[in-house]
Amino acid sequence: MLKGNLVVGQSGGPTAAINASLCGVIEGAMASGFDGKILGMVHGIEGLLKENFIDLGEIFADPADREKLVKTPSAYLGSCRKKLAKPEVDPTDYNAAFEVFKKHNIRYFLYIGGNDSMDTVYRLSEYAKKIDYDICIMGVPKTIDNDLNVTDHCPGYGSAAKFIATAIREMARDTRVYDMNSVLIVEIMGRNAGWLAAASALARGEGHPSPELIYLPEAPFKMDEFLEDVDALVKQKKVVIVAISEGIRDENGVYVCESTASGAVDVFGHKYLSGAGKVLENAVRDKLGYKARAVELNVFQRCAAHLASKTDLTESRAVGKAAAEAAISGMTGRMMAYVRESTNPYKLSVAPCDIAEAANIEKMVPREWLNERGNDVTEEFVAYARPLIEGESYPEYEDGLPVHIIRP
Amino acid sequence: MLKGNLVVGQSGGPTAAINASLCGVIEGAMASGFDGKILGMVHGIEGLLKENFIDLGEIFADPADREKLVKTPSAYLGSCRKKLAKPEVDPTDYNAAFEVFKKHNIRYFLYIGGNDSMDTVYRLSEYAKKIDYDICIMGVPKTIDNDLNVTDHCPGYGSAAKFIATAIREMARDTRVYDMNSVLIVEIMGRNAGWLAAASALARGEGHPSPELIYLPEAPFKMDEFLEDVDALVKQKKVVIVAISEGIRDENGVYVCESTASGAVDVFGHKYLSGAGKVLENAVRDKLGYKARAVELNVFQRCAAHLASKTDLTESRAVGKAAAEAAISGMTGRMMAYVRESTNPYKLSVAPCDIAEAANIEKMVPREWLNERGNDVTEEFVAYARPLIEGESYPEYEDGLPVHIIRP
Repeated sequence: MLKGNLVVGQSGGPTAAINASLCGVIEGAMASGFDGKILGMVHGIEGLLKENFIDLGEIFADPADREKLVKTPSAYLGSCRKKLAKPEVDPTDYNAAFEVFKKHNIRYFLYIGGNDSMDTVYRLSEYAKKIDYDICIMGVPKTIDNDLNVTDHCPGYGSAAKFIATAIREMARDTRVYDMNSVLIVEIMGRNAGWLAAASALARGEGHPSPELIYLPEAPFKMDEFLEDVDALVKQKKVVIVAISEGIRDENGVYVCESTASGAVDVFGHKYLSGAGKVLENAVRDKLGYKARAVELNVFQRCAAHLASKTDLTESRAVGKAAAEAAISGMTGRMMAYVRESTNPYKLSVAPCDIAEAANIEKMVPREWLNERGNDVTEEFVAYARPLIEGESYPEYEDGLPVHIIRP
Repeated sequence: MLKGNLVVGQSGGPTAAINASLCGVIEGAMASGFDGKILGMVHGIEGLLKENFIDLGEIFADPADREKLVKTPSAYLGSCRKKLAKPEVDPTDYNAAFEVFKKHNIRYFLYIGGNDSMDTVYRLSEYAKKIDYDICIMGVPKTIDNDLNVTDHCPGYGSAAKFIATAIREMARDTRVYDMNSVLIVEIMGRNAGWLAAASALARGEGHPSPELIYLPEAPFKMDEFLEDVDALVKQKKVVIVAISEGIRDENGVYVCESTASGAVDVFGHKYLSGAGKVLENAVRDKLGYKARAVELNVFQRCAAHLASKTDLTESRAVGKAAAEAAISGMTGRMMAYVRESTNPYKLSVAPCDIAEAANIEKMVPREWLNERGNDVTEEFVAYARPLIEGESYPEYEDGLPVHIIRP
């Protein structure tokens, strides 16, 4: 065991389960007999560079506070969207980071995040080898998008999926309340991978026929077929619920959303999207003459901790714990991942994986998990996703509202 | 006690508590020794005219099913937005309704709904007197808008308020995750009365400063003051959450939302609104240069039964029960309403009120419950609303999703 301190950070978009993983890291370090400090970097790698640390070992000494942490949405430590340049292009941030590591005798580095964050983990671990600095660097996956390679699924996805399926079930009842033709289009996050919109299929069950149609970016969106399908379904059932990924696109790869033309991009060069639902709403109204309404589930789908999946929180906590324990036992440059042992009964284990295989690769919904027409998912997807939303994990309530634990 | 059958219907926009009131009506009838049938009209008054009835006494004989009914969102019986013409203008619907009453020997009529539904109740009860048909007609209030006159608050409002406050609290944590200037604008239902947006104030508490600004239709919206306030707050706190009613308007009464110009109206002649949040988002981005995002809570705020207020469900059930009991004991032409006995400790009773005073009058948030600048609510509002969101009432879950009871 290296003598020194551990630092953990959270990065990228928040989820309802990212603090469960943070709690797992803290508990993994506590359980390992590690005797250094457990530090948290405030706002990810940006906080590291500013030496903005808090002492998590001290703050979360009381197990009751750790339970509150697990049920608090968004990143307790704050997050950032900073992407490190390639060290061969600009080594400034790497030199600065390792200066901080040396100054604070940091020997364990855990980073909880998605694709871009795993890229950071990978580059830092490679750089450590290059400059021969002894440090164990481990990644903990996190993303509601469920698009990380290697791991069976991603911490945070199950809670988002449970929220989406519940929202669809409740909104479908709402829409079905009038005896009239009506189309509700629910726009769900997912730029490239359709995992979140696919989760809408879980809403189905006895007495719950919706959503009637599901469109993901993994299959080209054909407006004429969409209108044909909606028309036939409205004639048959009056009320039709359509779930779509924000990133659906046509056969030429052109996004359905209007705002593509604006060319706006985020700091990672991803196109900023919004409005695919609105486009379909207008198409249904104008071309078919039906009452139509588009609803965006928006940021709420990633922070609705009041409806978190117990399975997700339990697993997210476990993967954080395993990553900390692995780092402390000397492992470096890897991401701790989920391995599905079996689906029926559902059984999961965690295991380290090659971080190069995890970073910068987006895992898509397999095309064979969509039907041929590309307007629904198959039973294979449902069997895969169903266990991930199992169980409820209610937060404490005070004055009628969920209790969160807030960084001092 | 009149010898005959009872019919109950649900009308207007659904809520998370309207089925609790339906359950209360069923239980009130069951408890009163009444020996007729308890019929439900499917899709409100439209179902009545079509003689589309189901036997609720039979369907809900098992108390376990009634518990499921209480926790099922949207109107179990289906709803309608039909507005009866004034009988002196067109008596067709009245004649038809009373033909149905006679044919099915209906002697008790209970209607659960909002402003427009209470208008229907009032007109039917007046018509009954005019044609001298013995029937007891009672209204049960319902609206997330909380804008019914006479009653202290409206069944359904507490659950919507709890959802809104929870969503704001969770989304505020999400927005605050990055160390950067950012403005989140949350658009909340409320065309004329700002009760729902006002409920966002309940999200505040220790460690929860948001929302920073709240705008209701009850005070004129001044764009220059809004931008001034946002700018000062961003400079001070970086992240600012703004809660607005969809129906905010300027000093001349012009709606902030863009779509006013379209002139679209619903069947009651109300202007169809959307987009006030988007207008403010663009203003913040263009005029102040801050990152801004507008989120609409949309239909979800009225059907999120998974997060219902226990207080609301309990009261909604009680007011339905009291209305049925009153009808069966001979009362007619009245609405059963909430009377607040005290706020601290919170104590509520139900009492009949004059339906003419309830119908067609929208109760606004008192101007003195907004601050002088019109950008927040006062402690008086918070004291009024806080008890209404107390307590959780979780539905059963099966396969990770809430169980609803569906009309056969």
